Amino acid sequence: MAESKPVRTPLSELGEFGLIRRLTEGIELKQPTSLKGVGDDCAVLRPPSGQEVLVTTDLLLEGIHFDLSYVPLRHLGYKAVAVNVSDIYAMNGTPAQVTVSIGVSQRFSVEDLEELYYGIRAACQFYDVDLVGGDTSASLTGLSISVTAIGYAPKDAICYRSGAQVNDLVCVTGNYGAAFMGLQVLEREKKVLKDHPEATLDLKQYTYVLQRHLQPQARRDAVEMLREAGLKPNAMMDVSDGLSSEILHICHASGVGARIYPERIPIDQQTLSVCEEMGMDPLTAALNGGEDYELLFTVPLAAQKKVDDMGINTIGYIAKPEAGVVAVTSDGSEVPIRAQGWNAFGGKDAK
Amino acid sequence: MAESKPVRTPLSELGEFGLIRRLTEGIELKQPTSLKGVGDDCAVLRPPSGQEVLVTTDLLLEGIHFDLSYVPLRHLGYKAVAVNVSDIYAMNGTPAQVTVSIGVSQRFSVEDLEELYYGIRAACQFYDVDLVGGDTSASLTGLSISVTAIGYAPKDAICYRSGAQVNDLVCVTGNYGAAFMGLQVLEREKKVLKDHPEATLDLKQYTYVLQRHLQPQARRDAVEMLREAGLKPNAMMDVSDGLSSEILHICHASGVGARIYPERIPIDQQTLSVCEEMGMDPLTAALNGGEDYELLFTVPLAAQKKVDDMGINTIGYIAKPEAGVVAVTSDGSEVPIRAQGWNAFGGKDAK
Repeated sequence: MAESKPVRTPLSELGEFGLIRRLTEGIELKQPTSLKGVGDDCAVLRPPSGQEVLVTTDLLLEGIHFDLSYVPLRHLGYKAVAVNVSDIYAMNGTPAQVTVSIGVSQRFSVEDLEELYYGIRAACQFYDVDLVGGDTSASLTGLSISVTAIGYAPKDAICYRSGAQVNDLVCVTGNYGAAFMGLQVLEREKKVLKDHPEATLDLKQYTYVLQRHLQPQARRDAVEMLREAGLKPNAMMDVSDGLSSEILHICHASGVGARIYPERIPIDQQTLSVCEEMGMDPLTAALNGGEDYELLFTVPLAAQKKVDDMGINTIGYIAKPEAGVVAVTSDGSEVPIRAQGWNAFGGKDAK
Repeated sequence: MAESKPVRTPLSELGEFGLIRRLTEGIELKQPTSLKGVGDDCAVLRPPSGQEVLVTTDLLLEGIHFDLSYVPLRHLGYKAVAVNVSDIYAMNGTPAQVTVSIGVSQRFSVEDLEELYYGIRAACQFYDVDLVGGDTSASLTGLSISVTAIGYAPKDAICYRSGAQVNDLVCVTGNYGAAFMGLQVLEREKKVLKDHPEATLDLKQYTYVLQRHLQPQARRDAVEMLREAGLKPNAMMDVSDGLSSEILHICHASGVGARIYPERIPIDQQTLSVCEEMGMDPLTAALNGGEDYELLFTVPLAAQKKVDDMGINTIGYIAKPEAGVVAVTSDGSEVPIRAQGWNAFGGKDAK
């Protein structure tokens, strides 16, 4: 049976304004804080009375942050929104709006961008945020996506990186290294397909790690759970660059040290299997892999039972600054934690 | 005398975090609305009591929006901020914060980015806005800049595109077509230098049009003048794509028509000279050139004297929708205004 060719409408057929109309068609503002969305010089927002405004932004570039040879456009759209709202949750805020700007080369069709926006809209719906603006333009090569997320939080609820106190517990949601190993699987399969284009890949056994890379979720549920338990972290951030790098960020910003017990870092069974298969060290993947989009936070020692009851893992505690930021191995020896997160510029990352 | 070679530090020498530190070093928050800037998951802002939040964003891509063969990096940085705060003023708001994300290829050095940030900081200082966040990453090719500007305005002060009323005066600040002709001069000189690399160019006679292209200014002064005169436009926007395109935007958003008198559109003497030299029609440059970053607004008929006294030009008036959006030529004939603004995708622009 002959496959029907997918429709590919060139971008030039719609022009910039026609394209914006097509992509933003039917978008409704659902948040009471969204007064005006797409269609004027600015979006107009009204923060909830007495709350602060949280703003975060990310620029995602093809070939650096994503590889379209294995990342479906709708997953990319979803992820671009999810990683930004993750930053709002990481401040203990509630995201409410995003703006999305894209730059696209002639390689892309109108239908490609509809796929991207399908994912963007799905994430907006899932996280209850309105798409209120953006910018659509041509690019010479590749796809660029810039997302800005806006959220709100009462002043006293905001969790900065700088609030960690000596003796605080260091807690983490979820598990680590899975997204990184998902990426390794995808890179390996890409090479296989390059050498053997006729190969059929069975990726069933990698479902979890692939999903962690392709469709990360912001931990809205964890933030809401903490709120319901009346537990406000002293310091919090999301884990995008890698757990070790983020631990150092919190310690530097708070002027404290930390003792981390690596064997307590949660790692999923599938991550362990994939690491074994690929001959990689699971702890290295967990500490330095990045893109987990889990939450790293510190709470007073007295909250131990509450976090245990929530199924959240405690991986160490905050120490005096002179103790340094160290990993305590099972034999009791201490190894300084270094950031070996992703350095986009290829050099050493002097954090 | 031998020229000393400029220092060129590769980006990889600093790494992502080192680079961010270098570029954002010494940045102070000056706005009372900026509670937390660079260095956490989000910037934290506190809008002035009872005011709405205005958000706008632009993505600028090398080879599409700027050509570094003739645009100095510090001018580019300045312009990237100025065009965004222009959108805040166009809503009759006051800009207060920007975030700047950049993607840079290995072609750029640390010193290049310092030049870019010199311009960004200069614009922030000029417009009294704080740089509160952003993102710095590698790119495969070229330079990408994404700026988000945040501003504030009391609810009743905000000017939307949709507020134009029948019989309103259509007013414009400044003059038109100059930035476009500046771009034409730069493109011409680029060709000359390509064919005759030894040529020395004398661009003195083009100073004004070049400045209009390279270092556009947001019309903060005009917005403040209107406020001081107690005059609130019914509709307002800034002129980025081209005057004819923006007139159509206001008319469509407001559900009205307009009669525009082209001979009343202000065009600078130098723009006229350059048009003559290049054999181009000044009115076409003025109506369709774009990037003027002037303000187009409508006010009630009764405000005629006030706007005249401010030296602001009235180029026509708002009509009933059935009259259409037309240019009335000196012989009294009517020609429908069409958007022939810049279409980045190369096709017809179906506004």
